[in-house]
Amino acid sequence: MSAPLKIAVLGASGRMGAEAVKAIETATDMELVAALGRGDSLDTLLEVGATHVVDLSVPSSTETNVRFAVEHRMHAVIGTTGWDEAKRESLATLLAKNPGTGVLIAPNFALGSVLASAFAATAARYFESVEIIELHHPNKVDAPSGTAVRTAELIAAERASAGMDPSPDATETQIEGARGAVIDGIHVHSVRLRGLVAHQEVLLGGTGEQLTLRHDSYDRASFMPGVLLGLRTVASRPGLTYGLDGYLELGR
Amino acid sequence: MSAPLKIAVLGASGRMGAEAVKAIETATDMELVAALGRGDSLDTLLEVGATHVVDLSVPSSTETNVRFAVEHRMHAVIGTTGWDEAKRESLATLLAKNPGTGVLIAPNFALGSVLASAFAATAARYFESVEIIELHHPNKVDAPSGTAVRTAELIAAERASAGMDPSPDATETQIEGARGAVIDGIHVHSVRLRGLVAHQEVLLGGTGEQLTLRHDSYDRASFMPGVLLGLRTVASRPGLTYGLDGYLELGR
Amino acid sequence: MSAPLKIAVLGASGRMGAEAVKAIETATDMELVAALGRGDSLDTLLEVGATHVVDLSVPSSTETNVRFAVEHRMHAVIGTTGWDEAKRESLATLLAKNPGTGVLIAPNFALGSVLASAFAATAARYFESVEIIELHHPNKVDAPSGTAVRTAELIAAERASAGMDPSPDATETQIEGARGAVIDGIHVHSVRLRGLVAHQEVLLGGTGEQLTLRHDSYDRASFMPGVLLGLRTVASRPGLTYGLDGYLELGR
Amino acid sequence: MSAPLKIAVLGASGRMGAEAVKAIETATDMELVAALGRGDSLDTLLEVGATHVVDLSVPSSTETNVRFAVEHRMHAVIGTTGWDEAKRESLATLLAKNPGTGVLIAPNFALGSVLASAFAATAARYFESVEIIELHHPNKVDAPSGTAVRTAELIAAERASAGMDPSPDATETQIEGARGAVIDGIHVHSVRLRGLVAHQEVLLGGTGEQLTLRHDSYDRASFMPGVLLGLRTVASRPGLTYGLDGYLELGR
Repeated sequence: MSAPLKIAVLGASGRMGAEAVKAIETATDMELVAALGRGDSLDTLLEVGATHVVDLSVPSSTETNVRFAVEHRMHAVIGTTGWDEAKRESLATLLAKNPGTGVLIAPNFALGSVLASAFAATAARYFESVEIIELHHPNKVDAPSGTAVRTAELIAAERASAGMDPSPDATETQIEGARGAVIDGIHVHSVRLRGLVAHQEVLLGGTGEQLTLRHDSYDRASFMPGVLLGLRTVASRPGLTYGLDGYLELGR
Repeated sequence: MSAPLKIAVLGASGRMGAEAVKAIETATDMELVAALGRGDSLDTLLEVGATHVVDLSVPSSTETNVRFAVEHRMHAVIGTTGWDEAKRESLATLLAKNPGTGVLIAPNFALGSVLASAFAATAARYFESVEIIELHHPNKVDAPSGTAVRTAELIAAERASAGMDPSPDATETQIEGARGAVIDGIHVHSVRLRGLVAHQEVLLGGTGEQLTLRHDSYDRASFMPGVLLGLRTVASRPGLTYGLDGYLELGR
Repeated sequence: MSAPLKIAVLGASGRMGAEAVKAIETATDMELVAALGRGDSLDTLLEVGATHVVDLSVPSSTETNVRFAVEHRMHAVIGTTGWDEAKRESLATLLAKNPGTGVLIAPNFALGSVLASAFAATAARYFESVEIIELHHPNKVDAPSGTAVRTAELIAAERASAGMDPSPDATETQIEGARGAVIDGIHVHSVRLRGLVAHQEVLLGGTGEQLTLRHDSYDRASFMPGVLLGLRTVASRPGLTYGLDGYLELGR
Repeated sequence: MSAPLKIAVLGASGRMGAEAVKAIETATDMELVAALGRGDSLDTLLEVGATHVVDLSVPSSTETNVRFAVEHRMHAVIGTTGWDEAKRESLATLLAKNPGTGVLIAPNFALGSVLASAFAATAARYFESVEIIELHHPNKVDAPSGTAVRTAELIAAERASAGMDPSPDATETQIEGARGAVIDGIHVHSVRLRGLVAHQEVLLGGTGEQLTLRHDSYDRASFMPGVLLGLRTVASRPGLTYGLDGYLELGR
């Protein structure tokens, strides 16, 4: 068995960071060498000999953290938001100067959610009809969820590239809102219910059959298998990867 | 075993009527004594000695058919639409003059659908949140379905009588339509998908738990168990009953 | 508005007890007057003037606790296990001597689960086929779950009383176990999956239609609405009630 | 627009063949040039100038039919069963002598089912737990279904190649059959219910999340989009392809 990965968590005092600390401590192929919070010096990373960092800090810190890591040839897995296209390009340039170093930026670490989106895109061109239902706790302030919007855009792009017609719909009269929001031609329905956490169904229908792809997220802990997968894979993928799906074996 | 019920089908050449003829011929406790279509004389009912009629004709014939049956002391099960309140009152008056004769008017014969609506109404007062999703084939011209609208009204009435607040909903920004149609305060979502027939889910949510009541209707044949139940029960329920739920044992 | 109920929690240091303390403190129509754990004297109940107790202690204490409460004319809601038939009869005798005092023993406080069982029993006689799927976390040591066994027994009893045949099943060859456990003639399937908590589906099928009753329990907090409902109702139901369904309005 | 494909249906008088005739007649990019049944001469294929054949005949005829087609450089899509490994090898040899000719043998034409199996195999390595539930009409004589057995084998193979442990399961006591059939270590549950046709769910669970892949087949017509996809693609895939998944774009 190879030596454990020496991992530092940045943003360790946040909720996601605390979960990551727990998950890494449990993994037998990893060693937690540092857990840094706001105000801690990045030099610690050098002192403890970290080979990998997980950045789960805040948008105002993440760029400084990750550039420091890359400049010292540490591999990085990033869950913090705020990495727009300009920042990603600048980071890619830095990585080109540090060949062999890998970085993963993952907007979503839930393996099931990432897989469900990829499967929905693959299946989109094979079914005449597709709609999305997302279901969340009632404290959510926006509808539809960001994941549902991105899934709809992905499906719409696949259908467009396959030259498909819109999903059939003979609706003539409706009570306002019944047919949901329409995103790039895809109907999306948002349910808000006490007791739920975060759930999504993609329904695909063709003559005489239906395919349903459902993902249920019950707990923040669901992100940890994706974080660990990222850490185990990042050293073998030099340069910048955007999206955890880049690390998954999706075809066969 | 008692003698079989002697049953006549009115509207036997329509799609529902043809299904009813088949179902009655299969039932061992029933005898099909007449199957009448448009233009056939109602006097046939007397000649063949029918004790029960099923009316699955058209709105323009149903009142004449049923009044004829009642005046001759036949019990009647009615699936034809068009029985508004005025017509039902007039029929009730006629029934009062023919004591011992029973009539059932059933807007919906699918046992599963009738039970699901009754259960939704019962459960409504015990959950903080409730929403409805109905799913149909894409040739349907109205949204939401009539069943979903009635279910929402029923749930809203139960919640109002229990003095409940609206389902919690923190939505501040939405893409138009995402949160569905709102019927008496209940959110209703309409999915249209090739391959589907007629389906409905009532989702009830409370702290840490969810109750889901789903009904799937795959085939017109699903109405026949309800028609047969109606025929077997109607003679023991003199007067007018509106809704198949009146014949079901719903409490315990 | 009437004065708040003065409630004491027994077994307050257990996990359920701690949840109950939180729930009662949040309820505007209740006042928490005592939270007793192992070793605390029951005389405290008299000193603080409790009118209601919730017993969530342990099997070895619950009988003493409840008899003390009843003898002092406090109403009691009991979630502790161990109340076999002999103990319930003895308690009923004590209650007969203290007219006006009510006690609820509830093996299950999850409203959704109690309702789902009641609905399954009601629907059982109207569908040719019925099976049960229960799904739990993989640390559960028994299969099927106790709730699934009781649901199967309830359904079987209803079908027997309606004189129904067994669900149709043409299976001639099976890999051992494929068709599940058979409890009083009802097939029950047990799924064990990481990520799940406690879930149950009753599937009822008839010609051309299906009715599905699903309950999802995500969290121990799901028991609290049932506990509060019990506390709000118990004073109006003198004597002993076994099962929370006795307090629900199930018929219409 | 290119000229329509000139298609002959073999086994046109069977149920699947009759569906195929209808589907091809409806497709604007196809022309039905022959519909042959038992006893019709294969020479008709030459007379009408067929470029493609669909073989939906019977096991005793299919090999003769397809070899005739290939020898005359027609592309063939085969839904008939009975193509064991020896027959496939012999056909591949024949195809090697007729370069440019394509043949697809598809044990399953339902796109949704083929996609669901492929997705289950892809997802298998990313979740700690996986189980399968298949649900069919009660006239089915075997349990589990052949599709469920193959899906289980596929999942087991993927998990083995990823070096995964069995799904966790703490069950100590069970009523016989509760935990289902075990196929290559994967638990499979078979539900039989009046009203159903053919349905399958693959449930994948990890810490705090669940992914569900469900396929519903309501009607034999669901096979036709797969047949048409096969006919549109077969000319561009010389040689022998086994399984419709070989024609789908599954990776991204």
